[in-house]
Amino acid sequence: MSSLCIQVINPNTTQAMTETIARAAREAASPATEIIAVSPTQGVPSIEGHADEAIAALGVLEQVKRGREQGVHGHVIACFGDPGLLAARELASGPVIGIAEAAMHMATMVATRFSVVTTLPRTLIIARHLLQQYGFTHHCAALHAIDLPVLALEDGSGLAQEKVRSRCLQAQREDGCGAIVLGCGGMATLARDLTRELGMPVIDGVGAAVKIVESLVSLGLGTSKYGDLAFPCEKKITGALQHLN
Amino acid sequence: MSSLCIQVINPNTTQAMTETIARAAREAASPATEIIAVSPTQGVPSIEGHADEAIAALGVLEQVKRGREQGVHGHVIACFGDPGLLAARELASGPVIGIAEAAMHMATMVATRFSVVTTLPRTLIIARHLLQQYGFTHHCAALHAIDLPVLALEDGSGLAQEKVRSRCLQAQREDGCGAIVLGCGGMATLARDLTRELGMPVIDGVGAAVKIVESLVSLGLGTSKYGDLAFPCEKKITGALQHLN
Amino acid sequence: MSSLCIQVINPNTTQAMTETIARAAREAASPATEIIAVSPTQGVPSIEGHADEAIAALGVLEQVKRGREQGVHGHVIACFGDPGLLAARELASGPVIGIAEAAMHMATMVATRFSVVTTLPRTLIIARHLLQQYGFTHHCAALHAIDLPVLALEDGSGLAQEKVRSRCLQAQREDGCGAIVLGCGGMATLARDLTRELGMPVIDGVGAAVKIVESLVSLGLGTSKYGDLAFPCEKKITGALQHLN
Amino acid sequence: MSSLCIQVINPNTTQAMTETIARAAREAASPATEIIAVSPTQGVPSIEGHADEAIAALGVLEQVKRGREQGVHGHVIACFGDPGLLAARELASGPVIGIAEAAMHMATMVATRFSVVTTLPRTLIIARHLLQQYGFTHHCAALHAIDLPVLALEDGSGLAQEKVRSRCLQAQREDGCGAIVLGCGGMATLARDLTRELGMPVIDGVGAAVKIVESLVSLGLGTSKYGDLAFPCEKKITGALQHLN
Amino acid sequence: MSSLCIQVINPNTTQAMTETIARAAREAASPATEIIAVSPTQGVPSIEGHADEAIAALGVLEQVKRGREQGVHGHVIACFGDPGLLAARELASGPVIGIAEAAMHMATMVATRFSVVTTLPRTLIIARHLLQQYGFTHHCAALHAIDLPVLALEDGSGLAQEKVRSRCLQAQREDGCGAIVLGCGGMATLARDLTRELGMPVIDGVGAAVKIVESLVSLGLGTSKYGDLAFPCEKKITGALQHLN
Amino acid sequence: MSSLCIQVINPNTTQAMTETIARAAREAASPATEIIAVSPTQGVPSIEGHADEAIAALGVLEQVKRGREQGVHGHVIACFGDPGLLAARELASGPVIGIAEAAMHMATMVATRFSVVTTLPRTLIIARHLLQQYGFTHHCAALHAIDLPVLALEDGSGLAQEKVRSRCLQAQREDGCGAIVLGCGGMATLARDLTRELGMPVIDGVGAAVKIVESLVSLGLGTSKYGDLAFPCEKKITGALQHLN
Repeated sequence: MSSLCIQVINPNTTQAMTETIARAAREAASPATEIIAVSPTQGVPSIEGHADEAIAALGVLEQVKRGREQGVHGHVIACFGDPGLLAARELASGPVIGIAEAAMHMATMVATRFSVVTTLPRTLIIARHLLQQYGFTHHCAALHAIDLPVLALEDGSGLAQEKVRSRCLQAQREDGCGAIVLGCGGMATLARDLTRELGMPVIDGVGAAVKIVESLVSLGLGTSKYGDLAFPCEKKITGALQHLN
Repeated sequence: MSSLCIQVINPNTTQAMTETIARAAREAASPATEIIAVSPTQGVPSIEGHADEAIAALGVLEQVKRGREQGVHGHVIACFGDPGLLAARELASGPVIGIAEAAMHMATMVATRFSVVTTLPRTLIIARHLLQQYGFTHHCAALHAIDLPVLALEDGSGLAQEKVRSRCLQAQREDGCGAIVLGCGGMATLARDLTRELGMPVIDGVGAAVKIVESLVSLGLGTSKYGDLAFPCEKKITGALQHLN
Repeated sequence: MSSLCIQVINPNTTQAMTETIARAAREAASPATEIIAVSPTQGVPSIEGHADEAIAALGVLEQVKRGREQGVHGHVIACFGDPGLLAARELASGPVIGIAEAAMHMATMVATRFSVVTTLPRTLIIARHLLQQYGFTHHCAALHAIDLPVLALEDGSGLAQEKVRSRCLQAQREDGCGAIVLGCGGMATLARDLTRELGMPVIDGVGAAVKIVESLVSLGLGTSKYGDLAFPCEKKITGALQHLN
Repeated sequence: MSSLCIQVINPNTTQAMTETIARAAREAASPATEIIAVSPTQGVPSIEGHADEAIAALGVLEQVKRGREQGVHGHVIACFGDPGLLAARELASGPVIGIAEAAMHMATMVATRFSVVTTLPRTLIIARHLLQQYGFTHHCAALHAIDLPVLALEDGSGLAQEKVRSRCLQAQREDGCGAIVLGCGGMATLARDLTRELGMPVIDGVGAAVKIVESLVSLGLGTSKYGDLAFPCEKKITGALQHLN
Repeated sequence: MSSLCIQVINPNTTQAMTETIARAAREAASPATEIIAVSPTQGVPSIEGHADEAIAALGVLEQVKRGREQGVHGHVIACFGDPGLLAARELASGPVIGIAEAAMHMATMVATRFSVVTTLPRTLIIARHLLQQYGFTHHCAALHAIDLPVLALEDGSGLAQEKVRSRCLQAQREDGCGAIVLGCGGMATLARDLTRELGMPVIDGVGAAVKIVESLVSLGLGTSKYGDLAFPCEKKITGALQHLN
Repeated sequence: MSSLCIQVINPNTTQAMTETIARAAREAASPATEIIAVSPTQGVPSIEGHADEAIAALGVLEQVKRGREQGVHGHVIACFGDPGLLAARELASGPVIGIAEAAMHMATMVATRFSVVTTLPRTLIIARHLLQQYGFTHHCAALHAIDLPVLALEDGSGLAQEKVRSRCLQAQREDGCGAIVLGCGGMATLARDLTRELGMPVIDGVGAAVKIVESLVSLGLGTSKYGDLAFPCEKKITGALQHLN
């Protein structure tokens, strides 16, 4: 185990996306940080709604538990809906950071208002709820969907990437925003180029979350184990999910 | 199958609580309504935090799927955190109502402000988040926890019930509220007596949710299948959760 | 008096509208429920602003008082601004439900966001204020006015109805909403057909309010008589309104 | 008619209170301003709840109509719940200002947070709703009720006045507020002495409203007759309220 | 010193704008009120962003200190961002009113929703933040920028004035607002003509602030010196700003 | 210049506090990061109100300008009110992070609700306003003041530190919070020990801000120079502040 080891969890089961995310995480991480990129052995190949999120949350918990047993120092949930975030925090003692959360927090610190560019229209409601929960509704100028499924980002054609790019340009022209948050783990590797092209911050949550975990660990801070996020009350989990015991 | 059949899902695996909930549901239901009370075959015996909720949400999805196959007309999620609510709505075509939601909505229609009495202090944050999500933060006068675990309500001693009662009386005296929402499915059968004793509405979400499902079905309304809550995008669920396919 | 008797109050004096509302109420009510549809003997023929509402509120109070004397079990205020709602609750012991309130509550339980379609643009502000008061501002995607007066719905030409229909279709296409709330008691009978045509919930508050009153009464719940909504302090009403004594 | 003539409406029928209010209004008014203090010829002797407010709103409308016919330049609604405010604005072309509104606005401009001291506990909810409607919820430190009826302020014993005073002192010590808003027209004449005794602003809405009306008139501003607050749509009012035609 | 003397501070150093502001202030003031229009001897010629505001705030403090020494009764900060408002209140004992604040408060009392028309797009965020801080976010229908720098209002060409006018007309047609707030001290003299042309309130904050100061002084109210806005803790200011000691 | 160089600005002129802050910043920084701790050559010795903040903001701008000329990569504003934050962002191209902001963001990612412990009661309002501006009002459980001036933290007696400690313990017992934010730059070195003693995160903003600047720089992100936070419009600053040109 390295001196600082972060588990980056792709909550879906698509290996290509785990690799995209791992690449973005490693690019962002400090040289001394080890990135362990994982995805659940079971679950859904992409996360495009609340039911997908509920299933993925279990995969996140399974991985957080495993990560903690391996002694990792923190965890990243690399799906823009931050599935299972508070549940994962209960299981962990180190920090657990979602990529939507990370990107949104960072955006509010480099711009007065940001826009979001995500995949399917039906995931916009998830982003809206996160904005409200995190307190950023009034910091968000607009939300956009490219209207392609998540896995279009992994089909090798570059079409989805081009749609992301043109939506970012449109948001810059029309929204009155000063930064853009990329709304999918699969867009993680686009951020640096788009930042350069647009001349304004385009933020990927994977890198942002890695840096926040590094920051918290280095400050000696982990998830609060006092009060609401204490380890779960002991109880016997039965059935298919008993590996979460 | 009866002319109106409601599936009432206890999201935990404790049979005694399923029975408490079933009793309250049947007491509330119209004579023509059939109540099918179920609980997941696997999961956690009680729900007292976010991780418990994430596990329970899967049990809810499993049961909603089964209920839909059986042809039920609507579903009740009988745990005060409304675990898996939006996910379950994606799987269902009939209405899906959580008991926290149901009780809170009803409370705002019989009083200007209500208080909540629940079990463990760590579950208060779940209620707070629901208040914000549903829009009722400013309708809530105060939140109280009796500081006993959920299953204390099923230990037969009556101690937890007595603590609920005394907290309700205290809330009535001190909070400036006009109604009280009982914050646990296991308290469902206490509502009518407490309403009588306090001379003000003490609301159980199980009964309230049953009535709202009956109402929606009778109005020809189900969960919107247009937009955000449409059936999940088709994708293959793998592993222990493949029964959700 | 039937075993459950609901007084449905059309707050304006237009008999044709009372009949439209009565029809919608009876269609929604359970077979065992008796609907008493009334309107004030004096007041305004339609309600299209705050002054109209203030006048209508008195008619509502007059009728609620009469209804209580007749022994009805609950009351519906069948105008989309819910005129006199909290005042009527003070006079009543059974539930008092407004149709805007009822439709909005129901809408939040079948969709993540809803739109409103109402009559004159100047009534939009009333809907906006209700959204804020009830806590639903963030659940509303957009508000639309067909720009015809209320009584156009009763002129027999069908023009207003057609405008409602086309605005609903437009809202469905453009707003990102999952349900539509009809913003006038005179639109009550349109909901079922529009629900079918649009393939998504189009909600009429008259039916919704009737079901909520039935639900509350059946749960043993009435308006809280403890605290803010207790019966008014005894005092002598003088002049033209002395019949409210 | 004087060069600037303000109609100050006591919405209840208690003459002693009309005189208290008139005194406070005249003390606040500029020498060139004529104050016409009126109260409805019919209605309730005090306003302590929503039903009282609904009745009083009609008296307000009746008086605003009469005032406009007399050619007054603006109107004050001198009851802390601002009953009928938006309705009255529809009837008027000059400014219409409520005393709760006036006092709250002024308070936010002389202090960062203010407290409210009012009469009966059941009227607190009215103040809460106004705070939310006007946008001042976060500017209010606390709300207090002296738990005496409104007319106790007119019984000549001075007991109510003493209770107001001691609550103001308590609020100053405990609330972290920088100003106090007096929550009843009957407290209007106490403000200057309490301001002196506490050494911080204690604000009476009657005087504040008079000054705001004077200010608006002098700026050439009246109630907007474009859009939401335009004169009511023409329609025939029937029955006891036909004098409002 | 006159019986009521108000210091109107133009926070920028452009003399022509000080004169525009002085003219508007004197037009609004009561005959007995003396207006002392000042601007800092040092600072920025116009205020079009946060850094300009920070610099201008010092000029405001310098002038408030001088005004207090001269015995003025109140102060107006005549820049639409209300720069240094709370700081100035600490230095003053009389009222200190910003023109954005004044115009927004007045707007909420003559219309249900207002729009803002200002100069450069980058100043919109300042208006947004003020709306949130004052509590008026939900009272604002829309914000517009004419996209000309502040000093274009003083170039004598009338171009900026014409752009303001056409944006006001557009806002009236499209926003669903009932009043317009002019978002720059340099627009102060346009309000009366635009009010007449549009037939709805177009509000200049300079005049509004003068009237509010007059009102507060006449009510015996000044800035609260109890709590948050008490005079600053004594401490030695060093360097270029030592004249603030 | 080091590969990553962060300017940490103590906005007051007290050298001992600059040293406390520098120590906390260096302890938090990565080995490769150079910390340049500065304070304005002129201003106030401590910041305990809005006027102090306005003066300090100028010192912040002066230092940010100098830092940019020196080629630093980012800036920290090490006073809990984040004075001059948005103004400083306009002057900078790298990130500018305030310590209140940094600590609050971090707190929301390790706990569901946090409390704040600060110095004088009059500074609480500054924290309240920041909570609202950043979106964290609902994430804050309570605010506490130890009622000692800022410089008591530098008097060597340890009394202020002991008061901070006992307030943290009280907050932990009573507030229902899961983390504590230390509300003064002078408390920066207390965080690690208190975190250990309380067994829950006690967060110092200086360290947190350093890590966020490091993170943003490493992600290739700086302050958005597009839109609201672009460099200030060119204009001549005159007088004592001309060094800001």
